[in-house]
Amino acid sequence: MKNYDKYRIGYFAPPVNDYDWVKKDHIEKAPRWCSVDLRDGNQALIVPMNLEQKLEFFTYLCEIGFKEIEVGFPAASDTEFEFLRTLIEQDMIPDDVTVQVLTQSRRHIIEKTFESLIGAKHAVVHLYNSTSFAQRQQVFRKDKEEIIKIATDGAELMNEIAARYTDTDFEFEYSPESFTGTEPEFALEICNAVIDIWKPTPEHKVIINLPATVEMSMPHVFANQVEYMSKNLHSRDSVVLSLHPHNDRGTGVADAELGLLAGGDRIEGTLFGNGERTGNVDIVTLAMNMFTHGVDPGLDFSDMPRAVEMFEKFTDMTVDPRRPYCGSLVFAAFSGSHQDAIAKGMKWRAETDPSRWTVPYLPIDPHDVGRQYDGDVIRINSQSGKGGVAYIINRDHGFDIPKAMRAEVGYMMKGISDHTHEELSSDEIFDIFSREYVNFFSPLDITDATFSYFSSTKEEGENTVAVRMRVVIDGEVYNIDAEGNGRLDAVANGLKKTPYNFDYRFITYTEHAISTDSSSKAAAYICIADKDGHEYWGVGTQYDITLAAVNALVSALNRMNKKEHMVK
Amino acid sequence: MKNYDKYRIGYFAPPVNDYDWVKKDHIEKAPRWCSVDLRDGNQALIVPMNLEQKLEFFTYLCEIGFKEIEVGFPAASDTEFEFLRTLIEQDMIPDDVTVQVLTQSRRHIIEKTFESLIGAKHAVVHLYNSTSFAQRQQVFRKDKEEIIKIATDGAELMNEIAARYTDTDFEFEYSPESFTGTEPEFALEICNAVIDIWKPTPEHKVIINLPATVEMSMPHVFANQVEYMSKNLHSRDSVVLSLHPHNDRGTGVADAELGLLAGGDRIEGTLFGNGERTGNVDIVTLAMNMFTHGVDPGLDFSDMPRAVEMFEKFTDMTVDPRRPYCGSLVFAAFSGSHQDAIAKGMKWRAETDPSRWTVPYLPIDPHDVGRQYDGDVIRINSQSGKGGVAYIINRDHGFDIPKAMRAEVGYMMKGISDHTHEELSSDEIFDIFSREYVNFFSPLDITDATFSYFSSTKEEGENTVAVRMRVVIDGEVYNIDAEGNGRLDAVANGLKKTPYNFDYRFITYTEHAISTDSSSKAAAYICIADKDGHEYWGVGTQYDITLAAVNALVSALNRMNKKEHMVK
Repeated sequence: MKNYDKYRIGYFAPPVNDYDWVKKDHIEKAPRWCSVDLRDGNQALIVPMNLEQKLEFFTYLCEIGFKEIEVGFPAASDTEFEFLRTLIEQDMIPDDVTVQVLTQSRRHIIEKTFESLIGAKHAVVHLYNSTSFAQRQQVFRKDKEEIIKIATDGAELMNEIAARYTDTDFEFEYSPESFTGTEPEFALEICNAVIDIWKPTPEHKVIINLPATVEMSMPHVFANQVEYMSKNLHSRDSVVLSLHPHNDRGTGVADAELGLLAGGDRIEGTLFGNGERTGNVDIVTLAMNMFTHGVDPGLDFSDMPRAVEMFEKFTDMTVDPRRPYCGSLVFAAFSGSHQDAIAKGMKWRAETDPSRWTVPYLPIDPHDVGRQYDGDVIRINSQSGKGGVAYIINRDHGFDIPKAMRAEVGYMMKGISDHTHEELSSDEIFDIFSREYVNFFSPLDITDATFSYFSSTKEEGENTVAVRMRVVIDGEVYNIDAEGNGRLDAVANGLKKTPYNFDYRFITYTEHAISTDSSSKAAAYICIADKDGHEYWGVGTQYDITLAAVNALVSALNRMNKKEHMVK
Repeated sequence: MKNYDKYRIGYFAPPVNDYDWVKKDHIEKAPRWCSVDLRDGNQALIVPMNLEQKLEFFTYLCEIGFKEIEVGFPAASDTEFEFLRTLIEQDMIPDDVTVQVLTQSRRHIIEKTFESLIGAKHAVVHLYNSTSFAQRQQVFRKDKEEIIKIATDGAELMNEIAARYTDTDFEFEYSPESFTGTEPEFALEICNAVIDIWKPTPEHKVIINLPATVEMSMPHVFANQVEYMSKNLHSRDSVVLSLHPHNDRGTGVADAELGLLAGGDRIEGTLFGNGERTGNVDIVTLAMNMFTHGVDPGLDFSDMPRAVEMFEKFTDMTVDPRRPYCGSLVFAAFSGSHQDAIAKGMKWRAETDPSRWTVPYLPIDPHDVGRQYDGDVIRINSQSGKGGVAYIINRDHGFDIPKAMRAEVGYMMKGISDHTHEELSSDEIFDIFSREYVNFFSPLDITDATFSYFSSTKEEGENTVAVRMRVVIDGEVYNIDAEGNGRLDAVANGLKKTPYNFDYRFITYTEHAISTDSSSKAAAYICIADKDGHEYWGVGTQYDITLAAVNALVSALNRMNKKEHMVK
């Protein structure tokens, strides 16, 4: 690929790396979450949300559990000003939720920003200016001192103006925008200059937010930068260190996670990673990653399908089918070996009832995010195997297909899917299975059968079973009495009394009650072989287990007959 | 969120962590790439590919530059067997491309796998068995020794069978499947047992592949696991250490990258992260991440739109608009401040012609992946600012709107987009701009104007310009002669001779040649103010710069008139 030499590493390593973060292997506590869906997310939509959509989305974000929500840039846009005013004037901000507003560092913008907040109980006022090498060089054409002055002038103004609005509890936030393209020493200098002006205390902290405005480095390098900042910020115990990753390199989640290990206390991000270009960091993934490590994320995604639906409604974006924890395909197993392991894992789970979830190929229990096993997990196409098909037929329809029969049924379904070039639903699979195997009563049918049992007086004795049965073959009726050493043997002997030649060998037989059937029918499975050794399975159901077995035998004989006509 | 206590950390830390990898900050050389699109990718599709699609996809993968392509599990599926046979028999595998096939560790499957390769020049035979704690416990219900025996039996068989097929150059690969749920010491033991059987040499290496079958840990923990394996594998100089990340935690790219720093030599992944559940690692993102750090990725994505198109055609999946480097929105800037910085960055670039790409908010030059600036980058909606609108009008239509006019034009477009609730295209923007400002000839029109210049004989002299012009106002014609100290002044004086009261003040004027216009017209911009101080811009174009200015003045006067009728 041409032109790779047009690029170089555009970030700057910190002057020292302690790598303390690398020794921790998981996040122990959820950070403070701040949703920027209505700001970063909204501005990246082809069609930004209107007022009604924003109000509804805000309410939904509160419902999920967000306590900090950035609502926009009220001084830059009438729409955003109006949105914030509506939230405040219609008293839509819950007491435990703080709205956050963004402002550039210019007097009239800061003034208007504070005005927009009149009547709010709490608010984060978020000041930013761009600090990166490239922006200083190309956009502002200013030196470092001039860039620091932009920040400190704004910080001083905020002190001054906030003093006039005493009804609101303000928290101040500063972002060295484009932090990832800024020399860490310079980012530290400008953040410390702002901290020194704001003079936070442990009781009244300020937020220093480090945006990966454009993701430029590998995630561990970002963690090194965060750790350097965290260890060298002034008044560290009075600072909430916030991270704001984007996803240009596809590692936004890793930035956030490693950054939290490196000292981050707070995350700004969006649902499903909406946001400019490749998006902001996906808070759903981050929260659910903590959940899978046994940490309460403090946000509620137990109804993930609704979260997806709401998001898609508000943004007109689509959640990718492979997006972790929420995509339509993330619990799907089409491959035979995966299906087999999941089925066995679920069986093991049912047997042992463990407190922990450890089912192979399923990082979480789909039920925990409001998804179903049916339809979501084991799905059948031409790549699937016997295990998956058997699992579905058992789970949804209560037929526990014997092991020896599974390969045949699996290949049948796989072949049909390969041929039709379509996924098979659970109902389609069961329809095919039923049509092919269950209670297959033509041309042979046994419409009535009454059994009598004769116990021998001998101790180790042969019992005798007599059957009186009505057999129909190709429309002709035969009333037959026969005996055998068991029910099936009696029926078999009876069939020999018809003019037809039933030339088969009995191979195997199992039966069980159908678990999902409230009428408590039984299912019986019989395998027979023809004179060439070809095997045929038949399945029978009936309220009575004996009659289920008769039906299974009849089904097997009729299936054999499909191949090779019964000879009169 | 309930049920978080149902989960615990399911991976195992290595017995020692050296953390050598963390000291490296970027990848210096592209790994060996292996595409598993036709295997892992294909099996995860709702409708897997048919033979024709697979053949075409294979050819496309070769075109991009893949030298290793896993083509399936030929012993498990007739379709995959047939696919491989077709590739071989139709001589579709380039000499420098190696096909790879997957096999379980069972005699008849391994036998059939080798059979499927007859006639191939090179092949990787990839043996796997699952080694994780959960699968040993729940699926196989076997102890560690029995699991090792599955692997070593297969490895021995492969030695034995390969000896019979001397026409193919075989490379062996072993995967401890579900490596991420396996104790690293046990993964090491089983891999070393296989290596000891295969006895690789530096000239004839084997591949040991570590699959993050399910992504379970933070990416740096995976790197620690890889480093431990890399440092403790037998015959390390004869082993190619391969990584096969999935994306269950949304950090598959980070796993691959940190894993490469930790000793990985090779990556198995798919285009755009297709694959079971959340997908395999996205090789496009990985390769492009290296590209942005100045490393030749060895794969060619210079026509990314075609890669997207081909992928969507083969898989019937959709590439998410925010997927790094390839999504439809990843270069889009809707926000005013981003647009402004990009416009300034592009201007700086044009002025300085730097060898490196450093434009703010654009991690790479869209042209390097076959994308356009037009339409892809600066896009206008209600969130956009003056800078973006001015940039588009200049870039696509050659009108370099004066700074003082930009805010007005920007707010106009933003308002229209807010009102119509739609994005505005470049052409729509220019239509609105033209209709509103350019050559606006009603009710006032100056249909002819001839200028004469009188130079004074005085040294510092007043020159005089005389104009003879034909003025039309509301259909009435006035032929007027007038003078002034400049062209516009002469025209202004002439207009005073009509019965209308043109009560305005002249504010500012600029002009330039229209760069994109091959007919080399000029554009002039005039701002006037009415008696209340309201300002009105007008734009005129003409081949002659003098007449362009007259047209601009007429346009400004007519726009003023829209607000306040010219009084007779």
